[in-house]
Amino acid sequence: LGKPIFLKDRLYDIMDPPPGVVAGLAYNQIGGSMIWIESVITGSTEPSHGNADKEKSQNLQMSRYRTTGKLGDVMKESAEISYTYAKTLCHSVQKNNTFFERTNIHTHFPEGAIPKDGPSAGCAIVTSLLSLMFDRSIDSSIAMTGEITLTGKVLPVGGIKEKIMAAKRCGIKRVFLPEPNKRDFEELPEGLKGGIAVEYVDHYTSIYKSLFSERQSALGAAFMSHSRYFTGTRVS
Amino acid sequence: LGKPIFLKDRLYDIMDPPPGVVAGLAYNQIGGSMIWIESVITGSTEPSHGNADKEKSQNLQMSRYRTTGKLGDVMKESAEISYTYAKTLCHSVQKNNTFFERTNIHTHFPEGAIPKDGPSAGCAIVTSLLSLMFDRSIDSSIAMTGEITLTGKVLPVGGIKEKIMAAKRCGIKRVFLPEPNKRDFEELPEGLKGGIAVEYVDHYTSIYKSLFSERQSALGAAFMSHSRYFTGTRVS
Amino acid sequence: LGKPIFLKDRLYDIMDPPPGVVAGLAYNQIGGSMIWIESVITGSTEPSHGNADKEKSQNLQMSRYRTTGKLGDVMKESAEISYTYAKTLCHSVQKNNTFFERTNIHTHFPEGAIPKDGPSAGCAIVTSLLSLMFDRSIDSSIAMTGEITLTGKVLPVGGIKEKIMAAKRCGIKRVFLPEPNKRDFEELPEGLKGGIAVEYVDHYTSIYKSLFSERQSALGAAFMSHSRYFTGTRVS
Repeated sequence: LGKPIFLKDRLYDIMDPPPGVVAGLAYNQIGGSMIWIESVITGSTEPSHGNADKEKSQNLQMSRYRTTGKLGDVMKESAEISYTYAKTLCHSVQKNNTFFERTNIHTHFPEGAIPKDGPSAGCAIVTSLLSLMFDRSIDSSIAMTGEITLTGKVLPVGGIKEKIMAAKRCGIKRVFLPEPNKRDFEELPEGLKGGIAVEYVDHYTSIYKSLFSERQSALGAAFMSHSRYFTGTRVS
Repeated sequence: LGKPIFLKDRLYDIMDPPPGVVAGLAYNQIGGSMIWIESVITGSTEPSHGNADKEKSQNLQMSRYRTTGKLGDVMKESAEISYTYAKTLCHSVQKNNTFFERTNIHTHFPEGAIPKDGPSAGCAIVTSLLSLMFDRSIDSSIAMTGEITLTGKVLPVGGIKEKIMAAKRCGIKRVFLPEPNKRDFEELPEGLKGGIAVEYVDHYTSIYKSLFSERQSALGAAFMSHSRYFTGTRVS
Repeated sequence: LGKPIFLKDRLYDIMDPPPGVVAGLAYNQIGGSMIWIESVITGSTEPSHGNADKEKSQNLQMSRYRTTGKLGDVMKESAEISYTYAKTLCHSVQKNNTFFERTNIHTHFPEGAIPKDGPSAGCAIVTSLLSLMFDRSIDSSIAMTGEITLTGKVLPVGGIKEKIMAAKRCGIKRVFLPEPNKRDFEELPEGLKGGIAVEYVDHYTSIYKSLFSERQSALGAAFMSHSRYFTGTRVS
């Protein structure tokens, strides 16, 4: 395949990634590459003892979301959109789940000195945030690309050929692509398509069902496990 | 070796540095140099009298992290990433340790008028923050270079030759390098490599084990000792 | 000596300066000049009526430091570094002194329309803040120049010749210079050096000892005297 394997391509391929880590797919003039997304909890806005409703409401509005990784304006907004959608989805599947209200989250896109931009990491950012919330690792042989809207619709992206080449080079076995990119994939040479299982998605809920819904019962437990980060706090 | 020794190279070489001070390695077109990192506690978010749980929870989220030293955007983000990772590591080794939630920290990179940028000080910034938290000096004959990700992975950096030359010039005896930079070091002339003990690291936990883990029992004591900064406060 | 005396040069030379006012030394392409530093208390974070512990703890973290004077980025950061160091020094000499936690401070560098930049006023800014805290005037025949680091080390600065010329022109009798600038001063013509007493400093504690330490017993009194600014407050 002639192409060098960049460090970022193999960043997590030799270990089970921690929850919050998801592989996206990027491309530019010189080709495609993996783009790893790392989300971690940086703090809690939780009151120590939940007696005052007032506190609760005050704290609820103080959770913060931060991004780093030399992002361009479009990608910064994409992360904001993904964060809002992840929170909305969280509320729709578990109306009492206040994980996003109670935690400060930081998402980083290594490597820190490489400029990144564009909206196509949207689905992967949502997945990174949900992986963090569920405290479940996403198999590092899965990758995804797709812009997301504020209601969860998945929009098509560019560079399908370059992205699939990068995915194969890095040992990816399963890829989520936007439904409108179906023809782009099907037009690829057989040799390139082989060995990659593709799922086309029109709305993020399809990704959610594939990766998280069978584990929904784990939500309560996972959420509780986060409480270990929050000294002296209890999750109500 | 013909090169002048800049002030910043020998900033801390004649004294035991205070906790929070760590030597990094930088380079640019004109060669390598030491980059000293100074972190200090600037205040506490702790309530003066611990009767109100409410205060506590409100304060926990208000700790602030500030950086100075004419940093470029990538280095500012690198410090944010390092701060988040240091906090995560702190919680993983001592789940009840709320040092980072309770303290405001200021990290400065002298000299103040010299522009600095890039992600390669990540490991050294994390070490500076942990040195401050543990209240333990880092031997000034130790230096390190390496980008860090939000989960603690160590990424390779440029300028290994220039950085090692600077390290030798300044009396550094022990250097932490990213594992992927192993070949860069091994290709250096024997005369340059001699006298420097190198440890290759793939994840920050290796640096942590080398510098801090045998001292873990000191953590509680160190944390208490910080309480001297916080007039009228008690550490629970 | 043929050079015009600028307004800023003689700003405070005809009266005992108020506490918080200190003379620094600046230079640019057209020569050296005095740079006066004025720090004043702008408010208190102290609760008006000391009944609520809650207020107190909330306020402690809200003290603010502001600078004006058309400062460049490096000088703004230099003021932040100086402020952090002054606070640290305050805590190390009087562990119960919460002056910096309880007061909002504003430092101005007249004249307001003249751009200023660089790190070399660091020592003078620290001195201005300590003068304010101790409520003691600094003799206006004293001037100083020197970059400061976050731990109080004093770094060399440029323009020693121009700065000493400005100092003499303005009647300065005593100058603090960074130790590494010793040669710069000694190389000056005898006629320029005459009449100026120089103290070389490697760390800010030397300036502290010269200007404040014999007055340390005054600290409690000085601190109490500030309480007049804080309507209805009590100093614990």
